[in-house]
Amino acid sequence: MPFDISKNTNYEAHKTAHRTNLCGQMDTSFVGREVSLCGWVNNRRDHGKLIFIDLRDFTGIVQLVFDPALNSEAYRLAKTCRAEYVLKITGTVNKRSPETINQDLKTGQIEVSVEAMQVLNSAKTPPFLLHEREKVEEMTRLRYRYMDLRTDQMQKNLRLRHHVTAQTRNYLNSKGFLEIETPILAKSTPEGARDFLVPSRLNPKKFYALPQSPQLFKQTLMFSGFDRVYQIARCFRDEDLRADRQPEFTQIDMEMTFVNADDIMATIEGLLAAVFKNSIGIDMQTPFEKMTWQQSMETYGTDKPDLRFGLPIQDLSSLFKDTGFKIFQKVLQKNGCIKCLACDSAHQFSRKDLDQLVEMAKSYGAGGLIWGKIDSNRDFQSPVSKFLGKNEIQAMVEQLRLKEGSLVLIVADNFKTTCNALGAIRKQLAQKLNLIREGFKPLWIYDFPLFEWDQKNNCLSPMHHPFTSPSPETISWLQDAPLKVKSQAYDIVLNGEEIGGGSMRIDDIAIQKQIFKLLNFTDPMIEQNFGFFIKSLEYGIPPHGGIALGLDRLVMILGSLTNIRDVIAFPKTQSAVCMLTDSPSGVTQRQLEEIHISLKEEE
Amino acid sequence: MPFDISKNTNYEAHKTAHRTNLCGQMDTSFVGREVSLCGWVNNRRDHGKLIFIDLRDFTGIVQLVFDPALNSEAYRLAKTCRAEYVLKITGTVNKRSPETINQDLKTGQIEVSVEAMQVLNSAKTPPFLLHEREKVEEMTRLRYRYMDLRTDQMQKNLRLRHHVTAQTRNYLNSKGFLEIETPILAKSTPEGARDFLVPSRLNPKKFYALPQSPQLFKQTLMFSGFDRVYQIARCFRDEDLRADRQPEFTQIDMEMTFVNADDIMATIEGLLAAVFKNSIGIDMQTPFEKMTWQQSMETYGTDKPDLRFGLPIQDLSSLFKDTGFKIFQKVLQKNGCIKCLACDSAHQFSRKDLDQLVEMAKSYGAGGLIWGKIDSNRDFQSPVSKFLGKNEIQAMVEQLRLKEGSLVLIVADNFKTTCNALGAIRKQLAQKLNLIREGFKPLWIYDFPLFEWDQKNNCLSPMHHPFTSPSPETISWLQDAPLKVKSQAYDIVLNGEEIGGGSMRIDDIAIQKQIFKLLNFTDPMIEQNFGFFIKSLEYGIPPHGGIALGLDRLVMILGSLTNIRDVIAFPKTQSAVCMLTDSPSGVTQRQLEEIHISLKEEE
Repeated sequence: MPFDISKNTNYEAHKTAHRTNLCGQMDTSFVGREVSLCGWVNNRRDHGKLIFIDLRDFTGIVQLVFDPALNSEAYRLAKTCRAEYVLKITGTVNKRSPETINQDLKTGQIEVSVEAMQVLNSAKTPPFLLHEREKVEEMTRLRYRYMDLRTDQMQKNLRLRHHVTAQTRNYLNSKGFLEIETPILAKSTPEGARDFLVPSRLNPKKFYALPQSPQLFKQTLMFSGFDRVYQIARCFRDEDLRADRQPEFTQIDMEMTFVNADDIMATIEGLLAAVFKNSIGIDMQTPFEKMTWQQSMETYGTDKPDLRFGLPIQDLSSLFKDTGFKIFQKVLQKNGCIKCLACDSAHQFSRKDLDQLVEMAKSYGAGGLIWGKIDSNRDFQSPVSKFLGKNEIQAMVEQLRLKEGSLVLIVADNFKTTCNALGAIRKQLAQKLNLIREGFKPLWIYDFPLFEWDQKNNCLSPMHHPFTSPSPETISWLQDAPLKVKSQAYDIVLNGEEIGGGSMRIDDIAIQKQIFKLLNFTDPMIEQNFGFFIKSLEYGIPPHGGIALGLDRLVMILGSLTNIRDVIAFPKTQSAVCMLTDSPSGVTQRQLEEIHISLKEEE
Repeated sequence: MPFDISKNTNYEAHKTAHRTNLCGQMDTSFVGREVSLCGWVNNRRDHGKLIFIDLRDFTGIVQLVFDPALNSEAYRLAKTCRAEYVLKITGTVNKRSPETINQDLKTGQIEVSVEAMQVLNSAKTPPFLLHEREKVEEMTRLRYRYMDLRTDQMQKNLRLRHHVTAQTRNYLNSKGFLEIETPILAKSTPEGARDFLVPSRLNPKKFYALPQSPQLFKQTLMFSGFDRVYQIARCFRDEDLRADRQPEFTQIDMEMTFVNADDIMATIEGLLAAVFKNSIGIDMQTPFEKMTWQQSMETYGTDKPDLRFGLPIQDLSSLFKDTGFKIFQKVLQKNGCIKCLACDSAHQFSRKDLDQLVEMAKSYGAGGLIWGKIDSNRDFQSPVSKFLGKNEIQAMVEQLRLKEGSLVLIVADNFKTTCNALGAIRKQLAQKLNLIREGFKPLWIYDFPLFEWDQKNNCLSPMHHPFTSPSPETISWLQDAPLKVKSQAYDIVLNGEEIGGGSMRIDDIAIQKQIFKLLNFTDPMIEQNFGFFIKSLEYGIPPHGGIALGLDRLVMILGSLTNIRDVIAFPKTQSAVCMLTDSPSGVTQRQLEEIHISLKEEE
């Protein structure tokens, strides 16, 4: 059920000196009453004897009728009105005659006969028609954002966003959370890649950084005895922008003390259930499904699987363990694996489609993709049929329960590449075969590796962040086999999107230091970047953990939207520019001097 | 009534895997029950046979008893515990014996006999004792902020702050407001004095600015049809810091369409009444008192008068219009004025006190301050008695209703200087004479001049900001006598502090342009700084207005606090430094290169 503005409007509260009611509020219960309304001209229809104006405010549209017999001055003024003029009218609500009733409009049973009108403001011809939003180039809509925001769609999106944040706050407040603001002018660190820096005027040659997250501050609040805190926090990351990223974005960011991971997950489940119920009327079953990282990678080839469809990845490694097929042999010798997807409707896949899937697999680093179809003779039609033994094919048909019309897609490579390639192909198949069911399928992924191997820099890197607690069961591997250590981290995935992630944090200074060392941080680096934080770990730190949800993405999912800029009032483009205000922009030499910097000479 | 943590805690919500209850929750109703508690060691008393530990969480303190007969291991562990160790215990709540009851403590009737204990974390000797906070230098408290925040005072302050913002949101949400986020990476403008600038990496040599307020964005949201919006908005101003200023601060910032000033003031009155009632239990009478700027200046010598005491400034100009006293003559010839304060208890003012008041008057630019006392012979004892006529003195005694023991303090100078000097002295007298009554006295100041004269730059400057609407009654003066034009601005004053200000905004592009011209903005300057905004005024702008309240100051007043850093979790010092994180700090050459700037060579 989409978000409904009228259900979320307290009409009485909007009564002001200028108006008694709102446009979209008008229905047959108002017939005979005098009302004062304000709004924008949505359109005007001049019928000679009568003029009709559709007046618009955020609640909807109501039809005004101007009759020169009723008020000739208002009629004369109405003649001059054009789209987006701002009007204030007083008139009487009347029933429309049966033949003029508009069933598509909430207010379509009535109209308002205008007795007095004031043109509060005029308007130039708009740069585009609001109801044609979908046809307008996005750059134009961003440049005239104040017009774009007047459209039904954007009104609905930002009202939904408000509602989601209000619900979030109500829920967390009721659960004993405090909202505590942390600095935006935060600490810059020499290692702070992707930090936005802010030169200090009062402290020459020093810089603040805008926070990529309030992580260390919210942990510090736990050290300070606040028990549970949250923020709907603005975060900043100076990344090369992707379509779904913004240089500033918003997180629902929280932290709790004297809890374990289950406490935190239960809190998020309650929060999301409340938000879904109260914003779009969806009942979410709690507790949510949970899956280990390993299981998710093996079954869905990703750590953010979309559970709105099945199509699990299946393993054929043991089936082919004694195969004569050279390619499979080689992979298995190198401790790789043979995995596949199997689906129906093979006939829907042309040779061209299959070639595209092969290319997709290669783009994920796989050597190739082997496909095969079960034909009407129940034979396995595949470029590699001749390399496979009859028994092997028979065993595969049985294991995968293949039948006429089945399609099998096999990747044989190392574990990671195989999973990644098949995970991507799985999503592709679901779309092509229309397997994605309506609804919302939340899922917890847990038992992540604490570290991953950074090929490029040839070192360990944290899978989440360096404050994530190792799981007690695997902590003994820390020194000797750190890649075997699991973390107490958990990600929340919804319909194939990661909407949040969190963890229990390290509360032991020795382990925190050990992990910094494993990440190749030298003592001076630790001191410079995290000195205050390490120090604070010595003064009585409670067990604590937290999580952050991406608000922008959550609202997108709730609103069934695909463009992140549609849930942000004043977003930036992919080149980090605000089209409305023309920001960023140049500054004067005097301004630069005041903050003790100069522009770098180009070489 | 001060803010009460226990009344604002939902104990049930804080149950977790580690604990069943909170420390401050324990009272005689729990006697006989087994509870699990977590918290910090507030102190330990070793009585040989028994060990007592006061365990602390945010709700208070409870006494734990360790008896080796009950659990020898827990007793042994308790012996090792020091201040700020983090414990988790399970035990039974028992009534204290009558002689050990502590009436000062909410939990003083009971104690918890510990049956099991886990030391969750140890702690170094704290840098200061929490209960000695008042004695600790502020720099030390800021450096160890996580310790300072554990104190009762800071727990109470930040919980009050949370409560005030939560109440604010609840109230505004119920009145049809939407909370809509606006950019922190906003537009820098060449005229943007006091802007924090952020170099753009993706757009070399261009800069964002952190917003000093969301003013233009919230107006743009009104142009976009959102009707009512608010933000609890972070704002930034790179000022030389004063004791009560921070480089980043928080405003309750709102804007409404199709309203007049009365609608906005009524909204704020309802908001403040709800906040006062629900946070500190104070009933505020609405509507609040209102006073024109002129009347406030004349009566209280300031536009933010403290109405918790009387002591109005009185005018003697007409009384002395024919005086022979040269000083008064000269002032009146120059269109100046003669004003005074009169109070009782003249005997409390020594010659030294009076000399200090004279110095105070001079520091506000007044030529001097004339004082006089009515002695027991009902004579006017004053250094200037001999220059004044008997009739004049008699008339003054009657007009001011002076009696034995009255003190009169007269300033004769131009209007502004006279008001400013007496306004400052009025506050001084109220403190000395203990005239300030308890309670909260809100007041609206309205009918401000639209402009003031900037002596330094010899030009007009806006008293509020350049988007403030002139009042319709005075708008005709705009071209010929702009200093006579009044604005549709209103400030809300509470106990002598300005806690907010707002106005109806200009919605007429011609007037907006005229005002920019009066402020000496050239067309290119207007285009560069406000181009997008001016353009948007052409597309159908509704009447709108708004207001911003200073959250930090509001919380200070509600909490009866005097230091702004006591209502902010991680404040900066007067030199804009975060003592906890050591921010701002240096960055690497590589970081500077990435954002296309270099440090300016010192000359």
